[in-house]
Amino acid sequence: MNPDMKTLALACREAAVAIAALGPAAKRDLLLDMAARIEANAAGILDANAVDLRRAEGSGISAALFDRLRLDPARIAGIAHGLREVAGLPDPVGQVTHRDTRPNGVLVERVRVPLGVIAMIYEARPNVTVDAAALCLKAGNGVILRGGSEAIHSNRALAALLGDALAAAGLPRAALTLVEDLRRETMVELLQLTDIIDLAIPRGGEGLIRFVAEHARVPVIKHYKGVCHLYVDKDADIDIALGLLIDGKTTRPSACNSLETLLVHEDIAGEFLARAAVLLETHHVEMRGCERTRALVPTAHAASEADYAAEFLDLIIAIRVVDDLDAAIAHIRRYGSDHTEVIATGDDAAARRFVDSLRSAVVMVNASSRFSDGGELGLGAEIGISTTRLHAYGPMGLEALTIERYVLHGNGQIRHPSSQGRVGPG
Amino acid sequence: MNPDMKTLALACREAAVAIAALGPAAKRDLLLDMAARIEANAAGILDANAVDLRRAEGSGISAALFDRLRLDPARIAGIAHGLREVAGLPDPVGQVTHRDTRPNGVLVERVRVPLGVIAMIYEARPNVTVDAAALCLKAGNGVILRGGSEAIHSNRALAALLGDALAAAGLPRAALTLVEDLRRETMVELLQLTDIIDLAIPRGGEGLIRFVAEHARVPVIKHYKGVCHLYVDKDADIDIALGLLIDGKTTRPSACNSLETLLVHEDIAGEFLARAAVLLETHHVEMRGCERTRALVPTAHAASEADYAAEFLDLIIAIRVVDDLDAAIAHIRRYGSDHTEVIATGDDAAARRFVDSLRSAVVMVNASSRFSDGGELGLGAEIGISTTRLHAYGPMGLEALTIERYVLHGNGQIRHPSSQGRVGPG
Repeated sequence: MNPDMKTLALACREAAVAIAALGPAAKRDLLLDMAARIEANAAGILDANAVDLRRAEGSGISAALFDRLRLDPARIAGIAHGLREVAGLPDPVGQVTHRDTRPNGVLVERVRVPLGVIAMIYEARPNVTVDAAALCLKAGNGVILRGGSEAIHSNRALAALLGDALAAAGLPRAALTLVEDLRRETMVELLQLTDIIDLAIPRGGEGLIRFVAEHARVPVIKHYKGVCHLYVDKDADIDIALGLLIDGKTTRPSACNSLETLLVHEDIAGEFLARAAVLLETHHVEMRGCERTRALVPTAHAASEADYAAEFLDLIIAIRVVDDLDAAIAHIRRYGSDHTEVIATGDDAAARRFVDSLRSAVVMVNASSRFSDGGELGLGAEIGISTTRLHAYGPMGLEALTIERYVLHGNGQIRHPSSQGRVGPG
Repeated sequence: MNPDMKTLALACREAAVAIAALGPAAKRDLLLDMAARIEANAAGILDANAVDLRRAEGSGISAALFDRLRLDPARIAGIAHGLREVAGLPDPVGQVTHRDTRPNGVLVERVRVPLGVIAMIYEARPNVTVDAAALCLKAGNGVILRGGSEAIHSNRALAALLGDALAAAGLPRAALTLVEDLRRETMVELLQLTDIIDLAIPRGGEGLIRFVAEHARVPVIKHYKGVCHLYVDKDADIDIALGLLIDGKTTRPSACNSLETLLVHEDIAGEFLARAAVLLETHHVEMRGCERTRALVPTAHAASEADYAAEFLDLIIAIRVVDDLDAAIAHIRRYGSDHTEVIATGDDAAARRFVDSLRSAVVMVNASSRFSDGGELGLGAEIGISTTRLHAYGPMGLEALTIERYVLHGNGQIRHPSSQGRVGPG
C-alpha cells in the first residue's frame, strides 16, 4: 500500500468531518463563492484547458473525447451556473425522512447524513471536477477527484479555485482532494481503502468503469453503458415517435441517454420507417437494420448481432422490425443495459405492459430518453447514473450522496423490563 | 466457473420474475401457507435439527453457536409467528414514493421495484432460512440461501416446506434456492455472479463476513461486528443508566446489539460504578476496566487495548472512566464499529452533541441498545444490519430489499424541440 495515497485519503476523511458539520447556509455560500471564483478566473482555466487540448491533438484521441475535454467561455459559464444551481438546491443533510413514536414511547427518527468520503473516477470532461465536487460537498461529504491524465491541467486549475474557496471559508482544502498521481496502480490503491472511502463513482467509458468495478473493494455505483431503446408500437402517434427518435438520437449522440436501437412494430413499420429514414439521413445518421428493415429502407446497412448490444455514442442507429410488443420486450431484455427505454404508443395497456415487463432504471411512455437526466427529472443536478439495483437506480442527485440513519429518543426504555437495574436479575 | 452454481442462480433469477409479478394478496397468502406448513411439520423439523445438534456436540462448537443452532417447539412457533408478521406487513413493491409533474408536462414517478435476486450467506441459526426467505419473497425477490454446514439438515427441512408452499401456489421452487454444496469455492463462485445476483447479505461471525466481503464481486451489505457503547454522562439518571446497562449487556449477550463497552463520566463514576458493579456481578458479567475503573471497582480485571475493540458476544464488558463527553466521543470514534451507541443523560445539549458527533447507524438517547433491531424500530422484521453507509444503514427491513426507479409519462415531449421530427434538423 502506497502510504501517500492512504495519507491523502485519511486527510480527506478528517476534513470531511468539517464539511458534515456545516449548515445549509454555509454550504450554499461556499458553492456561490466557488462559482464567482470560476467566473473571475475563466481566462486562467481556458489557458490550462488549451494545454490539455494541444496535448490531446497529438494523441489520436477520438472526436467525441476531444469534444468532452474542450472548454470555452460558454461552458465555463455553464459550470458556474451549475454551481449556483447546486447551491440553491434544498440541503438533504439533517432531513428527517420518517418519525414514529413506538408503543413504548421511544421516538424513532430516520435522519439523512452524509455518506462520508466519495471517490470520483472520471475521464476527459473537466466540468465533472466542479459538478462532482459541488454535489459531494453540498451533501456534506469529502470528495477525492481522480480525473483523466488528458484533462489534468484543466482539472488542476479548477480544483485550485475550489480549494481557494474552501480555504477562504476556513475549511480544510483536503475536503476536496485532486489526485495528481494518475498511475493505474495508484487508482487501485485508492479503490481498496475500504475503511476510508465510502463510495466510488466511476464516470467514463466502459473500459474505465469495468476496471474500477473489477479492482474496487469499496462500494461502487456505476453504469457500464446506456443501450437505450425506442419501441414504436403499432398504435403510436407517428409524429410523436419521430420526435422522440430524432431527439433521442441526434442531439448530443455521445451522451449515455442517446437512443441506440429503434424497434418498430411490423404493422406500423412501413409508414414509420419511410419517414424516419428521411429524417435520419438528413441528420447524417447511419442505419443498421434487420432484413425486414432493409426491405423497407434500402439505404440501411445490415445490422450484426453486435450492433444490437452496441452503445454507438455516435450518429449510428440499429433498427429492428418486431412482430409485436412482446418481441420488443424480449429484445430489450436480451440486449438492454437497464438504463432507459422508451415506448411510443397510444395504447395505455401496452404502455403498462412495457413498463411492468422491463427492469430498466428509467422507463418512458411517449417521452424522450433525453429526460433520463438528473436535472430533467427534478433532482436538481446529477452525480452519475446507476444501473446497479442498489442504493440508487437511474440518475443520482444529492439524495443519493446521503444515507438515512436512526436516532432514538427515550426516557429509560429497555427491551426486557425484567432485567432492569432497579428490579434485579430477571 | 462451476456451471452448476451458475445454472442454479440463473434458474433463481428466472423464477424471480414470477415473484416480482405477484400482487400483495398472493404474497401474503404464500407466506401464511408457509407458516401453516412449518407448524404442521414441527416434529419433522425438530428431528432434522436433532441430527444437526448431535453432530455439533462432537465438533467443539461454542456454547453461543450451539444455542443459535438449537430449535425447540417455542422457537418453531416463533418462526411461524415471524412468517405471519411478515405476511401482514405492507407490501413495498409498487409504492410510488414520489410524483411530480415537470414544467414540460411530463409526469415523473419514483416507484419501488424488487432488487432481483438476493443471496443470503449465513451460519448456524436455522430460523434465518425462513426469516430471510419470507422477507426476500415479500419484497418480490428471488432468494438463494447458503447456510452453514452445521445447520444443513434443519435448513433442508425448512426450505423443503417453503418450496412446497411455492409449488402449491403454482410458483417455481427455484425462487427459493437452498445451496447444498457448501464448499467455500462454491460460495466464491456464487458471490462472483455479477450479472445474476443483485445483492449478497452475509450474516454470521466476523470471519464469514470478511470472507464474503473479500471475495464478492456482487454488491454486499454487511456489518462486521457490533461494538456498541453505553456512555453514562455526568447528568445521567443513574437508575435509567443502570437499566440500559443491564438490558444491553445481560439479555442475549450473543446478539450484535449487545453493549460491549461502558464509558462513564468521571463526575458520576464513583456512585454509578459502585451500583453497576453489584448488578453486573449478580448477572455474572466479567468486568475489564481502565485504571480509574479498577480504583473504584476492585473486582474488575485490567482491560487491554484489544478489549475496547472487542465484540465479546458474552458476559464480559469493557469499562472506561472518561474525563467528559468529548473523551467519550473520541473513544467511540476510535474503537466503535458504526453499529449502535447509547447515551444516558439528562442534558439535551449533551445528547445532541453525542448524536451529531457520531456517525453510527443507530444512536440512542436514554434508550436501550436492544432497540437497534428491525422489529423494535418499526420495520416489521429485519433481514440484517448494515454498517456500510450505502443503500441501507442500520437494521434493514423490507424496504431495503427494494429499489426506487423512474417511470415517466408524457405525450410526446422532447428535450430539444428544434430537433423535432416535424420541424427538421435544428
